[in-house]
Amino acid sequence: MSVVHAARRERLLARLKRPILLPAGAPQPRNYPANLQPFRASSHFLYLVGRPLPGAWLMLTDGAPTLYLERPPADDALWHGPPLDPAKLADDLGLPVAPLDALTPPPETLSLPAMDAATRAEQARRLGRAFTAGLLDARDLPLADAMIDLRLRHDEAAIAGLRAAAEATVAAHEAARAAIAPGVREHEVWAAMQFEFTRRGMGWAYPPIVTRRGEVLHERGLHRTLEAGDLVLIDVGAETADGWAGDVTRTWPVGQPMTPTQAELHRVVREAQAAAIAAVKPGARYREVHLTAARTLTAGLVDLGILRGDVDELVADDVHALFFPHGVGHLIGLDVHDMEDLGDRAGYGPGRTRSERFGLGYLRLDRVLEPGMAVTIEPGFYQVPAILNDPARDPGDRLDRATLAKFADVRGIRIEDDVLVTESGADVLTDALPRV
Amino acid sequence: MSVVHAARRERLLARLKRPILLPAGAPQPRNYPANLQPFRASSHFLYLVGRPLPGAWLMLTDGAPTLYLERPPADDALWHGPPLDPAKLADDLGLPVAPLDALTPPPETLSLPAMDAATRAEQARRLGRAFTAGLLDARDLPLADAMIDLRLRHDEAAIAGLRAAAEATVAAHEAARAAIAPGVREHEVWAAMQFEFTRRGMGWAYPPIVTRRGEVLHERGLHRTLEAGDLVLIDVGAETADGWAGDVTRTWPVGQPMTPTQAELHRVVREAQAAAIAAVKPGARYREVHLTAARTLTAGLVDLGILRGDVDELVADDVHALFFPHGVGHLIGLDVHDMEDLGDRAGYGPGRTRSERFGLGYLRLDRVLEPGMAVTIEPGFYQVPAILNDPARDPGDRLDRATLAKFADVRGIRIEDDVLVTESGADVLTDALPRV
Repeated sequence: MSVVHAARRERLLARLKRPILLPAGAPQPRNYPANLQPFRASSHFLYLVGRPLPGAWLMLTDGAPTLYLERPPADDALWHGPPLDPAKLADDLGLPVAPLDALTPPPETLSLPAMDAATRAEQARRLGRAFTAGLLDARDLPLADAMIDLRLRHDEAAIAGLRAAAEATVAAHEAARAAIAPGVREHEVWAAMQFEFTRRGMGWAYPPIVTRRGEVLHERGLHRTLEAGDLVLIDVGAETADGWAGDVTRTWPVGQPMTPTQAELHRVVREAQAAAIAAVKPGARYREVHLTAARTLTAGLVDLGILRGDVDELVADDVHALFFPHGVGHLIGLDVHDMEDLGDRAGYGPGRTRSERFGLGYLRLDRVLEPGMAVTIEPGFYQVPAILNDPARDPGDRLDRATLAKFADVRGIRIEDDVLVTESGADVLTDALPRV
Repeated sequence: MSVVHAARRERLLARLKRPILLPAGAPQPRNYPANLQPFRASSHFLYLVGRPLPGAWLMLTDGAPTLYLERPPADDALWHGPPLDPAKLADDLGLPVAPLDALTPPPETLSLPAMDAATRAEQARRLGRAFTAGLLDARDLPLADAMIDLRLRHDEAAIAGLRAAAEATVAAHEAARAAIAPGVREHEVWAAMQFEFTRRGMGWAYPPIVTRRGEVLHERGLHRTLEAGDLVLIDVGAETADGWAGDVTRTWPVGQPMTPTQAELHRVVREAQAAAIAAVKPGARYREVHLTAARTLTAGLVDLGILRGDVDELVADDVHALFFPHGVGHLIGLDVHDMEDLGDRAGYGPGRTRSERFGLGYLRLDRVLEPGMAVTIEPGFYQVPAILNDPARDPGDRLDRATLAKFADVRGIRIEDDVLVTESGADVLTDALPRV
């Protein structure tokens, strides 16, 4: 792997001839200082070094990288075994390793804010300026843009990482299907999925959603009991040991086939997903992929009699967003929302900003697609009381509430896959998992 | 449960007539701000409120409690469902609920440092003074001591929490036993254990140790493959949804019965544990429990010919600590090292400090035991090269290195259970799990 990461460092240095300091970050205390949350290294660090080394810093200066590591405390061998051998580590990683106290970044060094506050404080001390999680300093924008430029189009090793995450994610969803039954609690389903991750030495890429209340988009309670006739929405993805993410959603019936109303709306969401996936190709603008899903969904809802009117007009007026209020997807890579630590800069690019429209404002991505990009495609249909009962959003007689009432056994449906953009179109990394 | 927590708040108010502000804490970002680590509320907050409410603050003033909660953002219902109903929450918890912007702590309010930096910064802002994780401000010592006084002796609800954690912990270790086989990787064993926690709606109380390198006390790699003839050391404990911890270690042979040398040393550790458990009773000083384990272990090693000399002298000179370099246990409660966020104050009490001796310096607890306290009892035997090859620790001919060499197939053995101190002695909460 060292060759892969060395090549990435070379590509970064070729793009940006400025001193760069990137922290791995540090594990964060849970209930007392020695009881730590699982460590998740910064994705920028993982991209360039390949290994989650707590407390490490990558310095790139004068065209060369150095990895700085803290010296372990004197009694460390008792608790954590023989210390990392710097020479062996340097050999494994293909870059020089030095003790942290030798790190002296030159003035004007660029950096990106660490997610944990302790590392950010250290970063501020070392670079003599403040850092805020999720907020870029104007002087660091060239570094942010260089990282985005590298990470936006995945190299072969990155694609292999995404495929490994996809494989584990599919296996977990298969395990969920086998576990679903009336009387089973949501966290029992999640337990069966997590087992598939953990036994592979992987974890989750984001907190799991397994819920009979699919209309709550980020419902994470996991405490309800499934009942016959429910639809259970499962949005779960693996993260490989070196950080690559999967992100898949399926919506299954519990204890019986879908009712006719459930089956109709499930089909409409599947059609919206298929249309959006078909729209994924080099040169396509992602907002159009989103609008393709919105139009297909809207056409389906018109066919069912839930909406009335011209499809294009309904979408232009955000009437579809009453039922599909989020974006059709996002970048995926080392982060499940890839590079979201850089705000919208990765998803939108410089100069492009989010729409104020209800039907577009939650869209996390609006770039022109290129080969090597990976995105999710995840349309949905939800009955959210807070939206449907909001007088400000009432579409009048374009919504047939009497017909909608017949579909009361559908709370939320989402179908999501991970898609690699290739020269010839969409390569659905998670296509092995049935959708129905 | 509200009655339990109301009674605890009453007991705190009876002990300390000063304004008190205790934060629940906030979930911490993982790889980008919106992707959060699982939330773990402060144990002090959980003890007094009973529910992990992110961003909540408990204020106790003028003899009465109030819970302060942030107002959710406007679009919260879409992502997280209908907001908590403050009136229902107040009813469930048995205390008034108010919006966070109404929180105005009086001057001289006492508090305890939050573990997450964002909450600590908020705490500093609200109280006009700095807080440091794991470090007590002198003016907050009365609050720390009152919390210790409450939490040190577990009430009935606390004991029920510890029993629930113990039950899940035992089930996980049983699952591990069934999973162990040559060729199985450590994280596959952990997967089977985690499954038992997750399906109960529980998590882990501390990062798992499942290792064929038992001599590395905090070995957490989970990446090795078990081989026939190994001993695998498993130190794993559950945490209930409301925060109560389990903490159990077993050491099992892989693929075959223990070899005679493994069996001898495993028996010696079991005997040390049994002797220490027998020493647990009201009035016993925990350091004596530790030394009982040390003496029993030493006597066993003398019998095996590994050590030579008088048992009491060997222990007085810390020769036992060559093989048993850690303490025999610690408090257990809402934290697996209970109240370790208050430093040694819970384990040692005011005025008592850790020994400088190698054989006692790692002991986390040295109180006189009282009914209602819960502790772990976890002696071990390890061959740590960094200790055994340290010339400064060489005990000369009191260590028979030739005999020791015959036991080379033992890297590390630890046997650990959770023990409640009762009027009549030790109640081993995890006794249902076989030790051999």
